Amino acid sequence: MEFDHAGIATEDAGELAERYERLFGLEVVHEEAFDGMRIVFLDCGNGYFELLEPLEDGTISRYLADAGPGVHHLALATDDIDAALERARDEGVSLVDEEPRPGAWGHSVAFLHPRDTGGVLLEFVEH
Amino acid sequence: MEFDHAGIATEDAGELAERYERLFGLEVVHEEAFDGMRIVFLDCGNGYFELLEPLEDGTISRYLADAGPGVHHLALATDDIDAALERARDEGVSLVDEEPRPGAWGHSVAFLHPRDTGGVLLEFVEH
Repeated sequence: MEFDHAGIATEDAGELAERYERLFGLEVVHEEAFDGMRIVFLDCGNGYFELLEPLEDGTISRYLADAGPGVHHLALATDDIDAALERARDEGVSLVDEEPRPGAWGHSVAFLHPRDTGGVLLEFVEH
Repeated sequence: MEFDHAGIATEDAGELAERYERLFGLEVVHEEAFDGMRIVFLDCGNGYFELLEPLEDGTISRYLADAGPGVHHLALATDDIDAALERARDEGVSLVDEEPRPGAWGHSVAFLHPRDTGGVLLEFVEH
């Protein structure tokens, strides 16, 4: 699997996108409102930073309240998300999503529970 | 700039490397003791996961005590770390490292303070 993106929780995705563009030259390649969040993808050339701003109460607003802004998850790209999930299940990993579900940008996604992945919330993404 | 790696704090880099290899097919490409840490790089094809295990008291042992295991920082690759630092300084970003310093794997590195980068501890890496 390859690195796909790092998900970053923020109170203001627009402001952070502008800052990352000025500092790092990363440009916005996709933006949408999805699942109660404003989501902005910045292109790193070999992957993305996914900025996650809550538009209503939900996972990201709770994360911001508990932990403050910062890295929320890491995502790995797979061309067979069903097989990836099956392998995780076989290894005894707790799954946040038992089956792939629609994610941002039209991708298919599934999250693994951080307690079984070294404290990292890991996401599988199939484009 | 491109994605270079995600740094992950862990109590046991060897165990986590084995787990990530089984789960995600990521293989160890480099391993060293550096700056009081055992550091293991896993190859994502387009970047790395850098597993950071403390061998003595220091930044990572304190991070683990405060926040538990998980994503510690994100690193961006640059071919001119001096220019990258200068741009960050010009933008008013607080620098953890005023000048590049030797990092793991023989790279030149410098960290930016998370208070000015959306809560993300960001590292510049020049290979």
